[in-house]
Amino acid sequence: MATIVFCSVNKTARTTARRCLSSYSKGLASSGESPLSCTHSPLTTLLPSTRWFSRGSSVRFMSHGTAGRAGAGRTRRGALLSGAAAVTAAAAVAGFLANANHFQRAEMATKVSPISEEKEPEGEILERCRGFMSPPVTDIGELQERKGEMRTRMEMLIMHTQADFCKALEVVDGGTFKVDRWQRNEGGGGISCVMQDGKVFEKAGVNVSVVFGYLTEEAAKQMRSRGKVLKGKDGKLPFCAMGVSSVIHPKNPHIPTVHFNYRYFEIEEEDGSKQWWFGGGTDLTPVYINKEDAFHFHNTLKEACDKHHSQYYPNFKKWCDRYFYIQHRGETRGIGGIFFDDLDSPSQEEAFSFVKSCARTVVPCYLPIVYKHLNDSFTEEEKDWQQVRRGRYVEFNLVYDRGVKFGLATPGSRIESILMSLPLSARWEYMHEPAKGTLEAEMLEALRNPKEWV
Amino acid sequence: MATIVFCSVNKTARTTARRCLSSYSKGLASSGESPLSCTHSPLTTLLPSTRWFSRGSSVRFMSHGTAGRAGAGRTRRGALLSGAAAVTAAAAVAGFLANANHFQRAEMATKVSPISEEKEPEGEILERCRGFMSPPVTDIGELQERKGEMRTRMEMLIMHTQADFCKALEVVDGGTFKVDRWQRNEGGGGISCVMQDGKVFEKAGVNVSVVFGYLTEEAAKQMRSRGKVLKGKDGKLPFCAMGVSSVIHPKNPHIPTVHFNYRYFEIEEEDGSKQWWFGGGTDLTPVYINKEDAFHFHNTLKEACDKHHSQYYPNFKKWCDRYFYIQHRGETRGIGGIFFDDLDSPSQEEAFSFVKSCARTVVPCYLPIVYKHLNDSFTEEEKDWQQVRRGRYVEFNLVYDRGVKFGLATPGSRIESILMSLPLSARWEYMHEPAKGTLEAEMLEALRNPKEWV
Repeated sequence: MATIVFCSVNKTARTTARRCLSSYSKGLASSGESPLSCTHSPLTTLLPSTRWFSRGSSVRFMSHGTAGRAGAGRTRRGALLSGAAAVTAAAAVAGFLANANHFQRAEMATKVSPISEEKEPEGEILERCRGFMSPPVTDIGELQERKGEMRTRMEMLIMHTQADFCKALEVVDGGTFKVDRWQRNEGGGGISCVMQDGKVFEKAGVNVSVVFGYLTEEAAKQMRSRGKVLKGKDGKLPFCAMGVSSVIHPKNPHIPTVHFNYRYFEIEEEDGSKQWWFGGGTDLTPVYINKEDAFHFHNTLKEACDKHHSQYYPNFKKWCDRYFYIQHRGETRGIGGIFFDDLDSPSQEEAFSFVKSCARTVVPCYLPIVYKHLNDSFTEEEKDWQQVRRGRYVEFNLVYDRGVKFGLATPGSRIESILMSLPLSARWEYMHEPAKGTLEAEMLEALRNPKEWV
Repeated sequence: MATIVFCSVNKTARTTARRCLSSYSKGLASSGESPLSCTHSPLTTLLPSTRWFSRGSSVRFMSHGTAGRAGAGRTRRGALLSGAAAVTAAAAVAGFLANANHFQRAEMATKVSPISEEKEPEGEILERCRGFMSPPVTDIGELQERKGEMRTRMEMLIMHTQADFCKALEVVDGGTFKVDRWQRNEGGGGISCVMQDGKVFEKAGVNVSVVFGYLTEEAAKQMRSRGKVLKGKDGKLPFCAMGVSSVIHPKNPHIPTVHFNYRYFEIEEEDGSKQWWFGGGTDLTPVYINKEDAFHFHNTLKEACDKHHSQYYPNFKKWCDRYFYIQHRGETRGIGGIFFDDLDSPSQEEAFSFVKSCARTVVPCYLPIVYKHLNDSFTEEEKDWQQVRRGRYVEFNLVYDRGVKFGLATPGSRIESILMSLPLSARWEYMHEPAKGTLEAEMLEALRNPKEWV
């Protein structure tokens, strides 16, 4: 059984992971060496299911051996659930529709080093789908027919990201994700994976959505921050939007909350030409500051960004701090990470390659931190402070997050998928202000004055 | 000591209250008799501090005897706190600024029966202020000088409402409200009373705010739903806004949450003429349906409304169901009550008289329900369901409530007073749907299809 195999890996792995993150992080501080090159990378050591996009599909699916079968079971259950969880509209797509708007574009003057090292995983589409949490949203036959197209490659990427992240979380938690497939009347649908009240995770959600249909010219114009007028056939423009998004709220207040979202948008004009862009980001919301964790998280993102452009990390780090800002509190939601939108340069191939690198960092950014703090003890006061910070998370998501706001305002949205990002529990204390010199005050200070962690 | 006196009243009173609400509610169902005419009204029986606006100030302040001294102590603390709780802008005023907007006006063709039975309480301003939670926002000397003006009468009314409600809650809980005075740089200020983690109440907040200054013509236009253009001196219009607002979240899931807000707005045009209007409402958010409670609550409001106009209750009941609606859930927030805005007819005197009647109903609407369920036992599952409903309360307040939205978007608002309405704790469970035939499903049904309770 997959779970048992994973659990037996688990115990030794935890120790290795803690030693490893600790030692390589310390080493890195002086040497500048990448954590990914650590021979005892906790990731490769302990997570059989997270060997991400290995060069040979046979290796990948061998390492998934039992997981693959578990995935198939899940697939069948997912198919069964699709009827029960009858839904009408796109959830994660709200993120696209809203995030694509209002944002300045981070202009990149020149590209530092063209990257083509990240090969597409080989093997047949069908074979690769076996490891997913559920069959892809798009029919497998259709994906096979147009496997060279960006929308197919992106759908495979988001399905992979969902599966690898979910499986890594199942390994550490011991629990199982509930997989819900849902359909959108107007075209497309999604797969919501949620694990609630697990051993390690209070609430973990990983969503995929792939939606398509037609937009009016006015709606299409609003999609893009550059306000370009797009001309459609009879005023209507075919569009396709897809993405993976996730929020993980652990129980232990020493394990931070993580959020990520990677998305792709395509729109076709009257003359058949296509407009496309990518967006996304990964950010961390700890309850207490742990500089080593913050360095590891940001440095892993920086390494991924630096392979593509030296300005990506500094620009997208700032963008992240600006976006995840709770204005009425004068605080950022967490300690940031990266955030970008409207990315359509220097080429589609290279933008995709960057997004792929980002998606690949999700597990190595987060899982080592989870393992490191897995057995940290905590007090009732620390749990209370976590609940207060969860309250702020709710405030950001309901008051400011453009994806959530757009989703809630769109009739027929799948509310449960949109609000999956809310914690299982949260707390609001009147006039809560930590005493000076406490660890809680240190956390607040970092949220009020965003820091450079790398 | 005030607390001891109240507690000794408390025990006998609880029993009387439960028997009383139960018997007269049952009687009413067949006879149509008003609960207020019950000779053993739980209100008069058990709440020495809630003898509202008694005709002779001597009686009132005798009944407040010890409470008066406690109030004075609070006053001194309040004054001390005003420095510590340095704040910059109006909190409850956000309610006015936002609620006054967008709403249709409930037109009342004719007035049924002019009411003048509610006399202003006699006695000197200074004497009356002794029972308040803190000195009024406006200087007492200034209030004495213009005691006949509506703004003075309304400020006295909201201060009274705050004091009587807080004291009634302190009696039942045994705890004490924390009283914070705050000032608004641009003019005016407020008094926030909060009791947190008490024996009966998880979080109870009762706010008063009185703010004044100048509005631009554009802002003034937005205040009124009828879009009337107001002409100011050099484009600026002097305004004054005041109100009392409260949200009470009890611990026991069988005691419902209550919210009320009564407010008054005044604006002066270039020629010195004044525009004024009232707004407000009281609504109940139970976790489980209790038809007797719902009848008592709505009927008490209806009795108060009927004294002024036969259409007030039916119209303002509908308005309440429309306003407190969580669109993305397809549910009302609770079982409603009344809600109105932009009320400036048939005369200022009679509109004020109606608002006064409404403010007077706050304690008799709610306190008997609290006493009735004070010792109800509850299960862990019932507590969980309460927490899930609290999550919906948070969703309404952060996503839809115009007062909160306006307040959060206004730089310099007193955030702690605005978000005082959020519960101490809340919960979000993925895909939570009560099983058919359960009491939880019965509650949901009433929220999805608002009912007539009277």
